[in-house]
Amino acid sequence: VTQHPHVRTIDWDGDAVVIIDQTALPHRVEMLRLTTVDALCDAIARLAVRGAPALGVAGALGVALAARNTHAHNNNGATFEAAVQRDAARIAAVRPTAVNLAWGVTQTLAHRDKGAPAIIEAAQALLEAEAESTRALSHRGADLLDSLHTGQHRILTHCNAGALACVDWGTALGVVRAAHERNHLAHVICTETRPLLQGARLTAWELARMGAPHTLVIDSAAALVIARGMVDAVVVGADRIAANGDVVNKIGTYPHALAAHRAGIPFIVAAPESTIDATTPTGNDVEIEERGDGEVIHWRGWHTAPEETAVFNPAFDVTPAELVTAIVTERRVIRP
Amino acid sequence: VTQHPHVRTIDWDGDAVVIIDQTALPHRVEMLRLTTVDALCDAIARLAVRGAPALGVAGALGVALAARNTHAHNNNGATFEAAVQRDAARIAAVRPTAVNLAWGVTQTLAHRDKGAPAIIEAAQALLEAEAESTRALSHRGADLLDSLHTGQHRILTHCNAGALACVDWGTALGVVRAAHERNHLAHVICTETRPLLQGARLTAWELARMGAPHTLVIDSAAALVIARGMVDAVVVGADRIAANGDVVNKIGTYPHALAAHRAGIPFIVAAPESTIDATTPTGNDVEIEERGDGEVIHWRGWHTAPEETAVFNPAFDVTPAELVTAIVTERRVIRP
Repeated sequence: VTQHPHVRTIDWDGDAVVIIDQTALPHRVEMLRLTTVDALCDAIARLAVRGAPALGVAGALGVALAARNTHAHNNNGATFEAAVQRDAARIAAVRPTAVNLAWGVTQTLAHRDKGAPAIIEAAQALLEAEAESTRALSHRGADLLDSLHTGQHRILTHCNAGALACVDWGTALGVVRAAHERNHLAHVICTETRPLLQGARLTAWELARMGAPHTLVIDSAAALVIARGMVDAVVVGADRIAANGDVVNKIGTYPHALAAHRAGIPFIVAAPESTIDATTPTGNDVEIEERGDGEVIHWRGWHTAPEETAVFNPAFDVTPAELVTAIVTERRVIRP
Repeated sequence: VTQHPHVRTIDWDGDAVVIIDQTALPHRVEMLRLTTVDALCDAIARLAVRGAPALGVAGALGVALAARNTHAHNNNGATFEAAVQRDAARIAAVRPTAVNLAWGVTQTLAHRDKGAPAIIEAAQALLEAEAESTRALSHRGADLLDSLHTGQHRILTHCNAGALACVDWGTALGVVRAAHERNHLAHVICTETRPLLQGARLTAWELARMGAPHTLVIDSAAALVIARGMVDAVVVGADRIAANGDVVNKIGTYPHALAAHRAGIPFIVAAPESTIDATTPTGNDVEIEERGDGEVIHWRGWHTAPEETAVFNPAFDVTPAELVTAIVTERRVIRP
């Protein structure tokens, strides 16, 4: 990985949205400067930008872009608002199940009657708040690690809960970064994260980029790594946290929690407050999203299994609250 | 999968060794007829035949082939024995760490002073004994399943402990086959088994071929499958069983055992008596073989992670005896 100056996953340069094109990682770092709503929608659809917090920011900056471009051509108030609203609806529709995308759009669109500069300012405020929030979470998580384990930490993480899913720090990987900046990080074991390899492609890239010593393993080697005393803690992100503390996260998280529990090492979940869903009583009340067969059986054009073999491809699993040592958010540490 | 008449993974047709070429699976079923020791050595080296019991048979049949070919050209006793012994040493050296290969060679070579027909007969006896042994193990395992669970069984298995690793029944997958023949099998969940995908490539193919309903999952989805009550038991093979009952098997077996234990379903190990190693006190005394990085980070020419990312690629893990419900061999059921 060529060392680059630190750049945000998604940012606003005054006139356009600038993103790291995640489809080119880990082999090339390509920045995309998106100057139109069409280009932004395309980037979201191609997963050039992904991850819940980053998508929230993309929604907000998309509305800013709409306002900026409309502002340039049209000063009539009613027409301006209608045009921005049309673009906003278009952006939110690109990934309709991504709650954060619609949330970022709605938050920013609320300022539409104040004109383009106010809209852009609101979107930038959302961007900065998001960056600030994961930084606070990251330091709180590093404090927690320091309180649970003496000396430099050896951490196992799963999937990518890093800067690439956020603005510039990440959640689980933000905690790793904070520990690294304190010189309290010894080593990170990252799992490749089948089927889409976010661990190999994105987390390993982020770790290489921050200069953190790290080793890649297949997902099913994590339990051995934990049992043999090769890590001091497991730190993961979360997609949803139920009211009772059950954690819904990337498929494969739960077996890591089982192994950590048996080995007696901390299992820490790093996630923003917005991930906690008080309306879902337990993890078993969450419907697990099933994704397409191709993610599992097609690999760059090659079919790994017989044609008639059926595939079950759940995207998430549920880690029971009693296996979770602590949940760290930007505001607090919760011990289920 | 085109239905073929049942064929053995490895067999003797009277003049030659016949194997299923496992490098062509799951897409093509190609039989190789190996008429020379050179051709057999090449097939072993290319992993066209693999799996401990199958390699034992390959060693035995290789010596038979040497005897047959030498016999055709040379009737002098001393020269005959020396020639067969030279070929035998060559066969055993192809995969020097595969204990069973050398064992099959040695067993058969013991008959070298009796002439070619006796050598061939000894090799065939070893082949039949191996086939008989896994069949006995398979039925004992199906009996055990019937005693532990009422009605048709839903089984999760890992890697390939099937006919392709043996002669024609397999160990864990032999138990599945026996249950299927009794009409006591509902469904099999097989894990793809990273990094080399023996589950997707070989186990799914065997299940399709026996007409058993089955579904493929990524390795790290198994714990969710078990937690959500989608299977009634986990059945796996073993590479070595320590004196205290700890089970060394393909990497990723241990987290399945953790999940089964928590869900309260049986975790069954199906393995021949020869797998039990009385000289190893516990699983922690076993050195875990580490394999090359390329298995993890190269996929058909594509590099999944940054160039500087290190890889840890252990081939096996250890399941503690207390997580094992029962070990089934061709002779008995052991409850650690």
